[in-house]
Amino acid sequence: MSDPFFIPPSGADLPRYAGVPTFMRLPYLSPEDPRRAEVELGFFGLPWDGATSNRPGARHGPRALRDASTMIRAMNRATGQTPFAAMQCADLGDVAMSPVDQDEALGNAEAFIAGVVEQGIRPLMVGGDHLCTLTVLRALRAARGEAFGLILLDSHTDLYPPYFGGQTLTHGNPFRQAVTEGLIAPERTVMIGMRGTAYDTEDFDFGHRHGIRIVQIEEFFDRGFGPVMDEARAIVGTAPAYLSFDIDFIDPAYAPGTGTPEVGGPTSFQAIQCVRALRGLDIIGADLVEVSPPFDPSGGTAWLGASVLFELLCVMAPA
Amino acid sequence: MSDPFFIPPSGADLPRYAGVPTFMRLPYLSPEDPRRAEVELGFFGLPWDGATSNRPGARHGPRALRDASTMIRAMNRATGQTPFAAMQCADLGDVAMSPVDQDEALGNAEAFIAGVVEQGIRPLMVGGDHLCTLTVLRALRAARGEAFGLILLDSHTDLYPPYFGGQTLTHGNPFRQAVTEGLIAPERTVMIGMRGTAYDTEDFDFGHRHGIRIVQIEEFFDRGFGPVMDEARAIVGTAPAYLSFDIDFIDPAYAPGTGTPEVGGPTSFQAIQCVRALRGLDIIGADLVEVSPPFDPSGGTAWLGASVLFELLCVMAPA
Amino acid sequence: MSDPFFIPPSGADLPRYAGVPTFMRLPYLSPEDPRRAEVELGFFGLPWDGATSNRPGARHGPRALRDASTMIRAMNRATGQTPFAAMQCADLGDVAMSPVDQDEALGNAEAFIAGVVEQGIRPLMVGGDHLCTLTVLRALRAARGEAFGLILLDSHTDLYPPYFGGQTLTHGNPFRQAVTEGLIAPERTVMIGMRGTAYDTEDFDFGHRHGIRIVQIEEFFDRGFGPVMDEARAIVGTAPAYLSFDIDFIDPAYAPGTGTPEVGGPTSFQAIQCVRALRGLDIIGADLVEVSPPFDPSGGTAWLGASVLFELLCVMAPA
Amino acid sequence: MSDPFFIPPSGADLPRYAGVPTFMRLPYLSPEDPRRAEVELGFFGLPWDGATSNRPGARHGPRALRDASTMIRAMNRATGQTPFAAMQCADLGDVAMSPVDQDEALGNAEAFIAGVVEQGIRPLMVGGDHLCTLTVLRALRAARGEAFGLILLDSHTDLYPPYFGGQTLTHGNPFRQAVTEGLIAPERTVMIGMRGTAYDTEDFDFGHRHGIRIVQIEEFFDRGFGPVMDEARAIVGTAPAYLSFDIDFIDPAYAPGTGTPEVGGPTSFQAIQCVRALRGLDIIGADLVEVSPPFDPSGGTAWLGASVLFELLCVMAPA
Amino acid sequence: MSDPFFIPPSGADLPRYAGVPTFMRLPYLSPEDPRRAEVELGFFGLPWDGATSNRPGARHGPRALRDASTMIRAMNRATGQTPFAAMQCADLGDVAMSPVDQDEALGNAEAFIAGVVEQGIRPLMVGGDHLCTLTVLRALRAARGEAFGLILLDSHTDLYPPYFGGQTLTHGNPFRQAVTEGLIAPERTVMIGMRGTAYDTEDFDFGHRHGIRIVQIEEFFDRGFGPVMDEARAIVGTAPAYLSFDIDFIDPAYAPGTGTPEVGGPTSFQAIQCVRALRGLDIIGADLVEVSPPFDPSGGTAWLGASVLFELLCVMAPA
Amino acid sequence: MSDPFFIPPSGADLPRYAGVPTFMRLPYLSPEDPRRAEVELGFFGLPWDGATSNRPGARHGPRALRDASTMIRAMNRATGQTPFAAMQCADLGDVAMSPVDQDEALGNAEAFIAGVVEQGIRPLMVGGDHLCTLTVLRALRAARGEAFGLILLDSHTDLYPPYFGGQTLTHGNPFRQAVTEGLIAPERTVMIGMRGTAYDTEDFDFGHRHGIRIVQIEEFFDRGFGPVMDEARAIVGTAPAYLSFDIDFIDPAYAPGTGTPEVGGPTSFQAIQCVRALRGLDIIGADLVEVSPPFDPSGGTAWLGASVLFELLCVMAPA
Repeated sequence: MSDPFFIPPSGADLPRYAGVPTFMRLPYLSPEDPRRAEVELGFFGLPWDGATSNRPGARHGPRALRDASTMIRAMNRATGQTPFAAMQCADLGDVAMSPVDQDEALGNAEAFIAGVVEQGIRPLMVGGDHLCTLTVLRALRAARGEAFGLILLDSHTDLYPPYFGGQTLTHGNPFRQAVTEGLIAPERTVMIGMRGTAYDTEDFDFGHRHGIRIVQIEEFFDRGFGPVMDEARAIVGTAPAYLSFDIDFIDPAYAPGTGTPEVGGPTSFQAIQCVRALRGLDIIGADLVEVSPPFDPSGGTAWLGASVLFELLCVMAPA
Repeated sequence: MSDPFFIPPSGADLPRYAGVPTFMRLPYLSPEDPRRAEVELGFFGLPWDGATSNRPGARHGPRALRDASTMIRAMNRATGQTPFAAMQCADLGDVAMSPVDQDEALGNAEAFIAGVVEQGIRPLMVGGDHLCTLTVLRALRAARGEAFGLILLDSHTDLYPPYFGGQTLTHGNPFRQAVTEGLIAPERTVMIGMRGTAYDTEDFDFGHRHGIRIVQIEEFFDRGFGPVMDEARAIVGTAPAYLSFDIDFIDPAYAPGTGTPEVGGPTSFQAIQCVRALRGLDIIGADLVEVSPPFDPSGGTAWLGASVLFELLCVMAPA
Repeated sequence: MSDPFFIPPSGADLPRYAGVPTFMRLPYLSPEDPRRAEVELGFFGLPWDGATSNRPGARHGPRALRDASTMIRAMNRATGQTPFAAMQCADLGDVAMSPVDQDEALGNAEAFIAGVVEQGIRPLMVGGDHLCTLTVLRALRAARGEAFGLILLDSHTDLYPPYFGGQTLTHGNPFRQAVTEGLIAPERTVMIGMRGTAYDTEDFDFGHRHGIRIVQIEEFFDRGFGPVMDEARAIVGTAPAYLSFDIDFIDPAYAPGTGTPEVGGPTSFQAIQCVRALRGLDIIGADLVEVSPPFDPSGGTAWLGASVLFELLCVMAPA
Repeated sequence: MSDPFFIPPSGADLPRYAGVPTFMRLPYLSPEDPRRAEVELGFFGLPWDGATSNRPGARHGPRALRDASTMIRAMNRATGQTPFAAMQCADLGDVAMSPVDQDEALGNAEAFIAGVVEQGIRPLMVGGDHLCTLTVLRALRAARGEAFGLILLDSHTDLYPPYFGGQTLTHGNPFRQAVTEGLIAPERTVMIGMRGTAYDTEDFDFGHRHGIRIVQIEEFFDRGFGPVMDEARAIVGTAPAYLSFDIDFIDPAYAPGTGTPEVGGPTSFQAIQCVRALRGLDIIGADLVEVSPPFDPSGGTAWLGASVLFELLCVMAPA
Repeated sequence: MSDPFFIPPSGADLPRYAGVPTFMRLPYLSPEDPRRAEVELGFFGLPWDGATSNRPGARHGPRALRDASTMIRAMNRATGQTPFAAMQCADLGDVAMSPVDQDEALGNAEAFIAGVVEQGIRPLMVGGDHLCTLTVLRALRAARGEAFGLILLDSHTDLYPPYFGGQTLTHGNPFRQAVTEGLIAPERTVMIGMRGTAYDTEDFDFGHRHGIRIVQIEEFFDRGFGPVMDEARAIVGTAPAYLSFDIDFIDPAYAPGTGTPEVGGPTSFQAIQCVRALRGLDIIGADLVEVSPPFDPSGGTAWLGASVLFELLCVMAPA
Repeated sequence: MSDPFFIPPSGADLPRYAGVPTFMRLPYLSPEDPRRAEVELGFFGLPWDGATSNRPGARHGPRALRDASTMIRAMNRATGQTPFAAMQCADLGDVAMSPVDQDEALGNAEAFIAGVVEQGIRPLMVGGDHLCTLTVLRALRAARGEAFGLILLDSHTDLYPPYFGGQTLTHGNPFRQAVTEGLIAPERTVMIGMRGTAYDTEDFDFGHRHGIRIVQIEEFFDRGFGPVMDEARAIVGTAPAYLSFDIDFIDPAYAPGTGTPEVGGPTSFQAIQCVRALRGLDIIGADLVEVSPPFDPSGGTAWLGASVLFELLCVMAPA
């Protein structure tokens, strides 16, 4: 049971639109705060979009998701879980990342996350663009000493080869890089939701060469989310795995506020069921990325993102 | 057959964006108008959101729904009904409700609706927040002398205990209050679409203790709207029943303009089929509530709400 | 194989948000450009909404669709097609159409399209309101000397009788006019997606009298898009057919930016599958109409429209 | 003193966002209503934009202005006037104008206004695009038998020659046409606020040839609104004059919701002072045109337009 | 000199869009925090709009203003002040105010502010609607034992008589109530910026009867802000005074996000100069109210409000 | 006189919303196009915001400005100029700039502009963030062999020291860098419009140390734009000078669509007069930067930006 210190105030005591907005209304703990030692799961933001090839704005994601997440209440009605009571959670703040220098930005994030992981806190990262995920994977890999599985819910594989000269890392290739660096185990990796136009088949080819399972959206809709997620569970197995959720997995009618939307995606209900289906796996870290508030005039994407964050949290909570 | 006085002008005679916007382009009849005696079904607005716990704005609902409803044409293509020809309908105006005094506001609404019901007019109320529904239930109960059934399409049960001290009525507990006051018959009450996070299980527990049937969204999607609505019809039976439609029943991708959206809901098609499935029941009154125009920048929620209003009308029309 | 001149630049060479926006980043060829002789399929815009009975703005459609279409990449991930490599495509520009004079506007469009067709270019027209389609049908009929089939994906039949006195052509009756003028073969015509309210049954009656197959949305959802599109293929057969896609076919949650939205429509996934199902037919021309940017604040409708345009292109590409 | 029937309800009795929205919350009187005989000043809408050369949408102006105008209270704080008490005002509704046929649309408007003028009602027209003004000028000229003065507040002269072939009337030439038809007396005509780019000097040349005084914005800002309006009063004199206010007179920061905005215009304060400066003239009719709600996402233009309408009303009220 | 603990992080160390958003990036101190004893000036929010007669939404003001205020840097370029270095400032959080019960909400706010004042912290309140100001005035009056002066920058006097039956306090009468309760000294009260329509002259009459100086906007523009503010300084004198800034003081082109905008107001430059002109007075407390985020789609009003908050802070800083 | 090839089509021949949108509807000439040799003034875009410290989005500026600029007509009404007839202008396209690699991006831009300058084309650059200006200054300096004057209209000096570690160039220091590199002559440099909060006085100190004249907004409003611009002309003198216009010079009520708005700025009228006042100087190049379409929902900033571009063009045109 959580210490009451770690329990968010109820909307019945302080209206949900009131108060300083931390993730889920959890206590904010700076790196020096001694109570960090008690934290089991930590939310933190990587407010950075310096690897974005198309429409920028994901640097504003953590701010918008903190705001929207204050609407979340204590209990998951569908599963009956009360995750804040089941484990001690906190908001660990944002990493200072230079918007104009990729190397420095990634370095700062890796150092911060290494500290988090070192303290025994499971990371729940809020992006930022998808290259941010690479920093979490690196920190987890370094701490664990071995590669782990990956479940990716996304409309893109992010296995693209580098494009644009010079700097080779973009938000289109974190997982290609992660495979190359040996961070993730490709044969225990599954990617779900791919669709839209492509430059060529190079990303799929790369994935297939390495044994990654890629589920295109047509297969997803044909078979239904239940069978697809059963297969995903089987691929990942009981060993440790990371869960990455790109908001553009969901159809842009539901989530317009993202940089590279692709039409023809799942509904919010389907997306949430996909996350819930992963309950019981050994999820060592997770993230929600690519929420871009400048393209989300009604705030609906942030609200959906906050709802997904809560489901990610519940999947990581003790049974 | 309706008197031509009660037939809305066609868009072929006056473009639908033209003219003073009344509900469905029906004649507006003030309380003193003698033609009120001929009315069988009356639209009216309760422009009030003084019981809203989260984002306000539903006070602007009747205005936006009158505007959008001028786009509705004469015939329901799916059912073949022409409701304005089948019964004499009118716009009865809005009730003057103090935005700063709940007791006075509710009292005025109850008095107005009592007058409507007394004239033999079936009420089709346009909110306003969900506490507005309580005033219709009270007026109908007073006039009929006995409790009636209820079908609620909503993402919340609105059976919550009072929250916030002092004033105990909020838009989160009209139906708890209605059960307590004996306005509705809980064993003939069915609530469909519940989802999202919860403070606890108190609302469900209350409902179940009183015999209310609650269909969560997971069950709704598992079984499909057909079987669920068949069960709803069976629960309500042939005795009188009230139908309350909270726009947040529908997924926020379709209906962003509401105060407390919950992701993972039905599509507009599914929602409309749910209403249509109730044809033939003895619907003594209905409402559409919680449309909040300030959160509806594109006007899509108002347009969807107007479409739902038309379906509510058709369900109340003679076969 | 296309001449490299006709291959759009990749986003890897020039970011997709950069450069002068032509349709799909194809070369723009004016009527006098000699390279028009090499073109097999030509995009062009009819920026005109002078026949719109409700909310105007479709005149701005071609501009917004050019902009959004620069996001399209080379390959259709679902089908594996690379249409720009398979046939030589170009942007032929917009027709100068008077916004205040219907006769002149239609005449200019017909003359322009006649020229396009004469050059052996298959037309892919971007509207504009739905009356624009009539000009393409007239030009194709004149060039071919016989009527052809029609597949219409739309929420309306556009078989309405003239409404408003005087000028009889509106965006509500291009296909009634096309039947009357003998442009299309009604027995090889299928219309899919009809829904919403109606003035009366006159449009359906007209269609049925002439042998047109009309699939209402309820049937579409009951049977699923697969069986419905199989039937559509059978109706159209192997003879030449025209394909017209009104963006209001898709539910307004996905496509709010249109003049006369009707709730309860298909998702973007379903809509795209409907187009793909037509592969292999003899499509002699196609269009996407009724995108109205002033009602599309987030640009999502334009992006969905551009995605549909790409699918139309793929259906018209060699197998 | 007005009959209480003609006094709008106070916001203290019915909140201003409540009730069926008529212009200024005045009673709506259809053409057949016998109380029209008592009306001294009549608001009515011309919901039409069929002569718009650029961005359409002004057809939605009357609807939006009725909505916004319900915010207006009884008294002009600056002048102390209570116009609704000083003369009997009413909402006469909208004219049915075909969106697709200019001749019919203008004919209907002229017939309607002729009827209004015949009943001795001074017209206060709400557009619609600027060609709508021509119909008021024609009706007034026909009734009076002689030309009258004109004050135009606008960023354009609307003295342009016809452009686009065929139909020669556009919203760019109502006043050229009015001069040609002898409706207005050019030597008693003053146009204020002209700015932006031009095709050529033909409109100015035409105006100057006929003796029209044109005040460009540079002169307006140099001299200040006081001296400019003093000159305008002197030009118009004590004989009858018409007052036309195009919302694009005001800078687009204040009034973005219009079809052809021109940057560098007056503030709302300056614009209102310009209207007030005309008090005491013999204003026989007035209008507010070119409010285009699709380009007014925040509704600020409609609210400013409603405020201008109230000032126009006050200028037309007895001293 | 401030303790470094009270110095906001620079954007050069943590980008301004990053981190948990407190007012001005100051430390958040809960009521129990011992460091509150060191605070000299405290920001806090009253997230409440339960007294709003027109468009609601000001309850969301503190959230939006915290967000926007993270853009403020250390130094006032115009005055050279560095207020965070000159006095120890903090974010004291929001008061829990029931959205449905006015008595409880006001009582909670008064108790909270009494505690703030008791600790010797000068209050800088962020609303909320204008009735929130009454709670600050009451707390200051109780602590000081005598009435104080008032400077109000607003488009309304908020001296209106109660309207709507029952509950008599609304956001239209805080200062009438404050005069009645003896909180403020009317002869040392000045109100600047009044404009728009009025129900009658009752508010002005009340003010004038009590000796309040009211400067209408016409006088403001005629004389210029310099002379007007000189007079305001003279009226208030050197004795203690409270400064209340309603965002609707500024023209809605600059500040659309408010509940009751009035056209024809000052620019942001003029408004800021008005605040700066008060430097050197004995300002015992201040507020910024009526920012309503639902009507501020671009966030510009919140940004302007945050800029005004900084100017209020500078006026309250030691010279 | 221009060759007709270089004259944009009139809106009377092709409505201004029609056609492929190039800058000002000028012909687009790729680097290889032989007609580039005839060009005297070239528009081109630098679609890049990789040096933005706050809100990104300026990479989308050239696209939005091309779109808006199609509304510009042939003649400057205020000055009588017809710049397209006076010199041969063209749209030279956008530079391919990597969004993720600053060095490569700047390098590509410099190479492109060097080519433009080499062809004798005067550059009119459309950003992009303000660091883009550095590439133009470098290319011009290299071609000319000596430093030139600078007029900057902006709310910031962009003389800030590097902030964020690593990469030292940001959009906050192009002119510091330009001074350091000897590109501009500081004693012939004038910066106008500075306001808002600051980190410290380091930027002003740097400027003053080098002899740059900085006019803060308070001085601008006190003296008026006329005297200020007279002084600017005197500082720059008759020798060559560059003119850089940051859209955030103008108040955010007029230009909300920018990354770092500062309240309290000039109106659009005043801003345009500032540009016009520079006529007759030897302007060797100019730019408009920092238009950020994601923060410009109504498109008003792009339209204002296009109007400013036209004024920049007129200032560069032969007398």
